[in-house]
Parts: sequence; C-alpha cells; structure tokens
Amino acid sequence: MKTPPRRMSKEEFEQLFQKVCNWGKWGPEDERGTLNYITPEHVRRAAGLVKSGRSVSLAIPINKTAGPDNPSPPAHYMVRNHDLAVPQGEPRFAVDYFASVFHGDCHTHMDALCHISYKGKLYNGKPAASVTSQGPTMLDVTAYAQGIVGRGVLLDIPKLRGVKWLEPGEAVTAEELEAAEKAQGVRLEQGDMLVFRTGHHRRRLELGPWDNNYEGEGKAGLHAGAMELLHERKVAVFLPDGDGETVPCNVEGMSFPVHALQVAAMGMCVADSLQFEELVQVVEEEKRQEFMVILAPLRLPRGTGSLFNPIAIF
Amino acid sequence: MKTPPRRMSKEEFEQLFQKVCNWGKWGPEDERGTLNYITPEHVRRAAGLVKSGRSVSLAIPINKTAGPDNPSPPAHYMVRNHDLAVPQGEPRFAVDYFASVFHGDCHTHMDALCHISYKGKLYNGKPAASVTSQGPTMLDVTAYAQGIVGRGVLLDIPKLRGVKWLEPGEAVTAEELEAAEKAQGVRLEQGDMLVFRTGHHRRRLELGPWDNNYEGEGKAGLHAGAMELLHERKVAVFLPDGDGETVPCNVEGMSFPVHALQVAAMGMCVADSLQFEELVQVVEEEKRQEFMVILAPLRLPRGTGSLFNPIAIF
Amino acid sequence: MKTPPRRMSKEEFEQLFQKVCNWGKWGPEDERGTLNYITPEHVRRAAGLVKSGRSVSLAIPINKTAGPDNPSPPAHYMVRNHDLAVPQGEPRFAVDYFASVFHGDCHTHMDALCHISYKGKLYNGKPAASVTSQGPTMLDVTAYAQGIVGRGVLLDIPKLRGVKWLEPGEAVTAEELEAAEKAQGVRLEQGDMLVFRTGHHRRRLELGPWDNNYEGEGKAGLHAGAMELLHERKVAVFLPDGDGETVPCNVEGMSFPVHALQVAAMGMCVADSLQFEELVQVVEEEKRQEFMVILAPLRLPRGTGSLFNPIAIF
Amino acid sequence: MKTPPRRMSKEEFEQLFQKVCNWGKWGPEDERGTLNYITPEHVRRAAGLVKSGRSVSLAIPINKTAGPDNPSPPAHYMVRNHDLAVPQGEPRFAVDYFASVFHGDCHTHMDALCHISYKGKLYNGKPAASVTSQGPTMLDVTAYAQGIVGRGVLLDIPKLRGVKWLEPGEAVTAEELEAAEKAQGVRLEQGDMLVFRTGHHRRRLELGPWDNNYEGEGKAGLHAGAMELLHERKVAVFLPDGDGETVPCNVEGMSFPVHALQVAAMGMCVADSLQFEELVQVVEEEKRQEFMVILAPLRLPRGTGSLFNPIAIF
Repeated sequence: MKTPPRRMSKEEFEQLFQKVCNWGKWGPEDERGTLNYITPEHVRRAAGLVKSGRSVSLAIPINKTAGPDNPSPPAHYMVRNHDLAVPQGEPRFAVDYFASVFHGDCHTHMDALCHISYKGKLYNGKPAASVTSQGPTMLDVTAYAQGIVGRGVLLDIPKLRGVKWLEPGEAVTAEELEAAEKAQGVRLEQGDMLVFRTGHHRRRLELGPWDNNYEGEGKAGLHAGAMELLHERKVAVFLPDGDGETVPCNVEGMSFPVHALQVAAMGMCVADSLQFEELVQVVEEEKRQEFMVILAPLRLPRGTGSLFNPIAIF
Repeated sequence: MKTPPRRMSKEEFEQLFQKVCNWGKWGPEDERGTLNYITPEHVRRAAGLVKSGRSVSLAIPINKTAGPDNPSPPAHYMVRNHDLAVPQGEPRFAVDYFASVFHGDCHTHMDALCHISYKGKLYNGKPAASVTSQGPTMLDVTAYAQGIVGRGVLLDIPKLRGVKWLEPGEAVTAEELEAAEKAQGVRLEQGDMLVFRTGHHRRRLELGPWDNNYEGEGKAGLHAGAMELLHERKVAVFLPDGDGETVPCNVEGMSFPVHALQVAAMGMCVADSLQFEELVQVVEEEKRQEFMVILAPLRLPRGTGSLFNPIAIF
Repeated sequence: MKTPPRRMSKEEFEQLFQKVCNWGKWGPEDERGTLNYITPEHVRRAAGLVKSGRSVSLAIPINKTAGPDNPSPPAHYMVRNHDLAVPQGEPRFAVDYFASVFHGDCHTHMDALCHISYKGKLYNGKPAASVTSQGPTMLDVTAYAQGIVGRGVLLDIPKLRGVKWLEPGEAVTAEELEAAEKAQGVRLEQGDMLVFRTGHHRRRLELGPWDNNYEGEGKAGLHAGAMELLHERKVAVFLPDGDGETVPCNVEGMSFPVHALQVAAMGMCVADSLQFEELVQVVEEEKRQEFMVILAPLRLPRGTGSLFNPIAIF
Repeated sequence: MKTPPRRMSKEEFEQLFQKVCNWGKWGPEDERGTLNYITPEHVRRAAGLVKSGRSVSLAIPINKTAGPDNPSPPAHYMVRNHDLAVPQGEPRFAVDYFASVFHGDCHTHMDALCHISYKGKLYNGKPAASVTSQGPTMLDVTAYAQGIVGRGVLLDIPKLRGVKWLEPGEAVTAEELEAAEKAQGVRLEQGDMLVFRTGHHRRRLELGPWDNNYEGEGKAGLHAGAMELLHERKVAVFLPDGDGETVPCNVEGMSFPVHALQVAAMGMCVADSLQFEELVQVVEEEKRQEFMVILAPLRLPRGTGSLFNPIAIF
C-alpha cells in the first residue's frame, strides 16, 4: 500500500471534475449539494445507532499558540474578571473575547460551499465574483444552519496499514478505502459521513506541529482519484483529520485537487482538521465503526465556514 | 396568570440558594454539575425520539448590527476573496475573520460554570479569584467538550397564555411551568433540557430590538422561585429565549438571581438568547413537545462560554 | 457665499482630473506624491513657528460607541488588570486590546495612497489590482513612515461666514478659500498643510452624531473645483474635519470626487475626520493661523492608512 | 565597563523607590508626572534644533509574524479590496483591519501611567484597583493626548563601549550614562527625553528575534540604580530600545524594577521597544546627539498605552 499511487495528469483531473460534477443536479439554486443525499430515513437510522449513549467530540481543542501550522493564532482574551459589580452588586460575570481566521491547517472547521472556487466558478456554476469584500452573496455557511445529522462511518487507514499514522505525502486511493471497508466491517452508503482517519492529529500529538501546507512538509490525504468512489457511493459529508489533501499533490501542476473536486464540483459538505484520537478509543470499546454524527456550524450570515465541534454519539 | 408574582426578599433568596445548592453533590472537583443527571439511558431515549428526521436550529443568526441589545456587535470581515492564487493557481479560497464578545443579550451562547460568581464563589464553592486575567483555571467551557445530548422539552408560555409573547417584566412561576406541562402534555424529568419559551425573539422580530437589560426596558423570564421546581425535577439543561431572567428583577435588591441560582448554586448547564420561532412551527407540525437535542459548544480552553448552534431533532 | 456652487459635469471632472494629475511628475516609482513639495527649508521654517511652545491635538478621541457615523465601532477591551503576578510578584501590569477598521466617518486617520483607486488606477497610474487580499504591494502607509513635518495653515470657513458650522451639503469653492486666506491673513504656499475647517466636529459635539455618508444626511466639504487651487499652490497635505467631500456630491453622477482628485490624481497626503475645536481656541489666543504640524502615522507594512494623532505646535 | 554592576538588595530598592518618588509633587490629581518638567522654553529650544529639516522614525515597523518576542502577533487583514463599487461606482476604496495587544517585547509603544502598579499603587499613590475590567478610571494614555514635544538626547552605549550591541543581561549604570554624556558631548537636563540605545534592535536585525523576557534569554538595559541620575537631572521622557529593563534583573528577588521606579514612583513618561538604527545614521551625518522629538500617542480613552511612531527632527 505504501507504494505511492500513480500521479494524475491535469487532463485526467479535468475529466474527473466533469465526471463527479453535481452542478444542476438539485436545481440551479441548490445550496445544499451532497446533503441532498441524506433522507429522513437516513437520519432515523443514524439515531438508531445510539445505544450506549456515549458522545465524543471530533474537534481539536482550539489552539491559541502560534506555530508552523498555526501562523496567525486566534486571539482569546479575558475582558472581564469577576471584579465588576452589576446593578445590585451580585452575581458577577467573567467574560472573554475570541477572534479568529479559522481556515487553515489546525482548527476544526467546516467549509461553506462559497469557500472554494475553481476556474472562476463555485459549486453549481455560480461565479466566484459573487464573493466580494462584503462576503458571499450565496452558498455561505447558513446553508447548513439547521444542523447536519447522519451516520458517521470511520475508515481508519493507519489501523488498516498497521501503523500509527500515515506520513506526509502518502495518499489513500479508492482501493484502499474499499480495503478499509472490508477490513473494518462497514460500507459507505448514500447519505453517509465519511470519517477519514490518516492519524494526522496523532502524529501532531506525538511529534509536535509541523508545517503541513505546500510550502512545508505536507500531509497525508486522499488520492484525487478516490473522489470517484465517494461520488458513486453518494457520500454526503467528508470529515478528515488533516484536510483530505495529499501534499505534495498527486495531480500534476495542481494544488488542492480534493477541495476542487469535493466542494466546487460535487458540492460536498466538508470539514477540515478534525481529530479522532478520542473517537478511536470509543470505537474500539464499542466495537463498531458507525455512529450517529451531528454537525452544528454557527449560523453566521455570509460566513465562508465555521469553527465547530462535531459530535459522534454511540 | 398576568398578576405579577409576589416579590421575593433577599433573605428568601438566600434560603433558596441553600436549598437548590448542589455544591459537593458530585464530588469536590466536579465540573459537570447538573449534566450528571443525564444517564446513558436518557441519551438512548432521546435518540429514540428521532422519527421524522427533521432537524431545526435553536440559534439566532449572528447579529452584526449594533443596536440597543447589541452595543458591541461582532466583527465579521472578509479577509480574502477569490483573488489570490494558491501555489498552482487553482482552486482559490475565500476566507473570513470573526471576532466577538458573545455574552450579552442577543447572541445564542452557552455559559460555562466559571461565568457566574456569587459572593466570591463559583459553582462547587470554588473561588471567583480562580478566574484571572489569564482566564479561568477551572470550570471553563471545556467541561462541555464532548457535547451534551438529551431530551428537550418545550414549555411554550405564550401559547399557554394565548398571547404572542410575554411582555418585559413578566415572570413565569413554578405553578405556571406546571400548568404548561399539563396543557402541553409533557413532564420535566431527570436529565431533561428545559426549552423555555417566552416569545422574546418573536417580539424582537415583530417590534424590533430593545434594550432588554437592567438599564433598559427589561425582559420576561422565570421567577426566581421556579428554580425549586427545576431542582426537584433534576432538570439538566436550561435553554431559554431571553436569558431566563425577569427584568426588572423580582428579588428585592438584586439582579440576575436566576443566573446565581442556576449556575453558581446548582451548577446547571445553561444557555442564553436562543430562539424558538422555527422550533414552534415544527412542534406544531410534529404534534409533540419533546425531541432530541444536541449542544456542541466550541472546545475553547479557558472559555467562559461559547457561541453555538443548538440543534433539535424530531 | 451660501448660494450652492454650480454643479460640475462628469466631463468637467475628467478634465480637472487630467489637469491636476501628478502621475510621473516625481518618477514612475514615486510613492510620496505631494510630500515632494516639502523641502528642508519648509521644515526649518515650520519649526521657526514654534514660539509659545503649546502643542494641541487635531484628533478626535477614539469613539468606541456605535452610532450613525460609527456603525462598526472599534473593539477596546482590558485583557489584564493588575491581578496577575509577574515572575517576582511586583510590579504588575494592566494591558488592553484594541482593534479597528478606522476608515470611515468618525475616526481621525490618514489615507495611504493605495486607499483610493479611480477607474482601476491608483496614484501614479499603478494598477488597483496591486492591492490584493494580502494587502497593497505598493503605495502603502509606510511611505509616510519617517513622519511628515511642515507648516499648517488654518482656513476656518465657519469663522469667515460668521456661523458655527457649515451645514451638510454646503461646498467651499476656491474663491471662498481665497477669501478665507485674505480675511485670516495667511496664504497657502508650496509644501503647506491645509487645515480645512467646516465645523463638522463642532456640529457633532452640539447636535450629536448623524449619518454623514451618501446614504445619510451628508456633510460639508470642498467643492471639487477647489482642487485646482490646491494644485496651483502646491499644497502638500490636506487636513479636514469631515473628509473633504461635500455630500451630496456636486459632481454629476459621482461620489467621492475630492478623494479621486486628491489621492488618485494628485498623490496628495490626506487625512480624514480631524477636529479643530481645541485648535481654534489656541489660534485665537495665539492670534495666528499658522503653526508647525507633525503627522506620525503608524509604521504598518501594507497598511491602507493609519489612526493617528496629528499635533500642532505654536 | 563590562564587569556586571553590583546587585541591589530589595531593601536598597525600596529606599531608592522612596528617594525618586514624585507622588504629590505636582498635586494629588496630577496625571502628567515628569512631563511637568517640560516648560514652554524647552519646547521652543527643541524646535530651535531643527536645522537640516530631516525627520526620522524611532519606531520598529509593526511586526505581524509570531516569534519568540512576539507570541501573540497583531492581526492585520485587508477587509476590502478595490472590488466594491461606491454609490456612483468610482472611486473605490481599499480598507484594512488591525488589532493588537501592543504591550510586550517588540512593538514600539508608550506606557500610560496606569500601566504599572507597585504594591497595589499606581503613580501618585492612586489605587491599582482603579484599573478594572472596564479600564483605568485615571492615569490613562489620554494624559498625553496633546502630544509631547521636547529635546531628545541620544546616549549610545554600544558606541561608547565600541561594540555593536550590549548583550542580554548587561546593565548600564549612572556612571556609564555620564561617561556617554562626556564622550558624546551632550548633557541630560531638565525636561529632556533620554534616547537610550543598547543596540537591542540592531542585535535583532542581525541575529534574529529571541525571547528577551524573564523566561527567556533576557536583554540589556539600565541598572536600577541609574534612576537616581534621571531623577536628579529631571529627565522628562525615557525612550529605550528594549524596554529599559536589564533581564535577568539586578535587583534581588525582583522583576521589572525600572518600570516600578520610572512609572510607579516617578510618574515618568516612558515608551518601550523603539529602534534607533535609522537614527544613528542621521546622528552620524548630522554630527549631533540632540534633536527635536515629537511623541503623539493615540487619543484612546481608557488606553493603558498606545502604539505610536516617535519622530526625531534634525
């Protein structure tokens, strides 16, 4: 499996883009993309997976320390201790201030569909220029305002390979995803949320942060070709540690092919930089790779995404 | 019901504080307070309420416009359009910046237990001075990191009274909560989340914003005496529109008695400024007042709370 | 004088733009524009005006309250009181956080030359596209890093007219500037800083804030035609209360003609939203309209301008 | 000179604190401290130093890159390119957002007198508790609102020692200041601004940033004992590269003794983290160590200090 998968030419990429493209599929004004795959029945079945009642976060605790994967850390300040009296003196309040640019390589967040453009187009063929300095005029994160509920399916690639984590630059192909399904006793079906583990955060916990972007050491992720499988299976949501990209890139002359395919072509609901280190413990104890998942990004009009805390329930 | 309920003296308040106080109940280092009431069985049963698969947000869209209930609005700026090339030119990214002090009177948020002190003490008798300019050293919002899952029970007071909303200053007593239970066919039980509707947000939608704080026109909420009922019933979570407080206050010489009782005394998991206008539509269509609720505040170390998007699932 | 001056057609505006245009005058890479008019001799003479040693600020105290001219007020928070010990306990420090978007209608700030584009061009014919989401790549505020020193000349139009302030929409022509020179015993010469008073801030102090932008009630300012005089006189710096614009505009089918002419065409060093209420007192006591002025914007790489505190010395 | 100066005991420090203490000297409500030393005559004479008309900044360009001396860098984002039309389409505007906590070890800023407390007291014996979570109620940076103008006197210690810079931990005594005066042909007099060069920024430019705080490698500065000389000479303003402190500290069991003495005891107007690398070039060319200086901190009500751009004029 560790043999690096064949590189994809730019031409092959363009063909793949067309193949997985969902533009128009749910109407010209659709803003929900692959969430359309999730039916009420899927939600019901997901809720049916709740047995032990345990819930577990898939978010990295917010990291306020500058570092190679966090060059512009969030600002988090106390702006009020318990020192100030209210009208009648008591009780008193402690208050904080929090500010961030959350896109990037170490904060667990969702991407709105407006976040990615490819050749001047957003999902559904909408113009990139619809996103001005005043924010997106369509496809913002409020498309996800009512929450996203469904079945999460963990494919744990390091477990499949018998390693602690994938090394930067290693790509996971469709074949390997299918091997993981088989080995781990699950199958991706319509409306599912793919919980895709490369061990990125485990590596960070053990070795410390590194620059995982194109200028740096890179990261493990999906091979661009694997998007075909996700498309065929009608996967609704993609939840990776890392951000799904393999860096350096396995498409010639290109960067971020996975985002281009998932978000711009497929209209897929995706998140970046989750962590599954608490999840894998629970998965092992509960002896199952499937669980209910709830995603609840902030209702931020004109947001290009949102910090969030995805929750798995067993 | 519209007769203003009897005022409570400060002495009665202090007795009530002692009566509902949960300090030590779950150990001297407990940080979960009334969440201890939620058992795995409660989570399982809550999931069992998912039938139609509909989900609905209980959050107000984030309000970026200064106004009487939003004097220091969040800062939300686009910091990158689709104008900047990535290493290989495509795809491109739109990115925003968001900053806020979310406590206050119009943003849907959770309170961490460290947020409130009464007479120098936090929940469980911890010192208010544990919250310094560097943030809380205990009882921060990460106590809720793994998400909160349970049964939501809507008590819709305007519906009970046959009005569109309660007017500022109107207080809801334990008796009226029980009347609502009866009329609406539900009963608050151990581990429940009380979804408490006064119509605050409906009023705001129809009449526009007003200063609902102590310096202003006030708001409708619970009567302080109602906390005894919540305590007896072992309610785990309190989810109000408004913030639960009746303003002006019905405890003599005091402000924010509900926060003092709920957070400081009981260690209750509470949120402020939700909205139930989408919820009440669904409740009417689904013909039930109970549903699964998931709360997923950000994993923000040293946070005094968190903006969030609470989700109800039917 | 109160007769509204003749409106200028768009065609006349374009001719004026060409007439006052300084592109290329100081070389194709010039970033200092009209500051090139200030010679060492001008600085020396400005210093020679210091006689009584009084200094006075021309800045409005920073306004943190949202209002019609301040829709997105700065965020200013204490982030540390004197509660936190340092390594050896003492002394202790109080620290604050300050954040702002300072361009707009009520904060005293400088404009960098990159701040304004006209028909896709910045000063000196540079492309507007040189200002990307990562900031300007030329003509930023660091062009002013070494400070700007020269002679300030106050032309006090309300004083000339015998009124407390000009009303919104009133425009000051070249003829009126010359009348003010004559009446007030000064003459604008090469390298001068024109301190242009309409009484904007006096009106705000007495009547309260108003929306002085195009959607609102407007403001008093220069007539676009007056730029010809500033060009002939080789004025180096323009320091207005308000922002120099007359709103509604006296150029047909156009907004912000003064900024277009001053910044984009002339490369003039300009600031917005100063206040001269303390200055006029000193001017009266010192019995002169001229004084040394020092401008010291922050050395902010890629800044489109800077909050600052301009100082006049008598 | 390189022999480390004698350590001072805490007892000696307390005696020195009393000796240089200016509390009450200018009245119980004084907020200007040592600025009271600057008379109109001093300002006039300072202006008389303007001969060549050159001005030079003493500020470090604002550093937005996280590093050992900049753990929480400012946030600086473009929030508007030239993409958005104004009411009539043209001209267009580029706008940025800037946010910072400027106190610390690498941003050129002034300290307000409220910034430092010693044993619960601010300058003039005011209580440290007057600085709450809502900000200082006295002694804030607006005490400096009208600008500070005077004579700057450069004492260049590396030049005196014949080195490029002082190494971290090296302290400059009163004797060495006097030796620098003699060697450099100047004398500190009443109302002067001491421009104190250790070469801190030169070292940073050549060797890169380092953690110059107590947890790190430290920095060169004044010996606490030197404050007696500044007191005797009635120095009004202290402008150091670094922040004046020698780290590790030469007072036993103490940190930040220079700030305690200067700000809390003397009420001295001080700034931190200036740079003199452009200045020393001009000083050499102009062949003099004295010049006019203008300090113009922002008029920020309740500010504990201000980023600023100090300007020297020759």
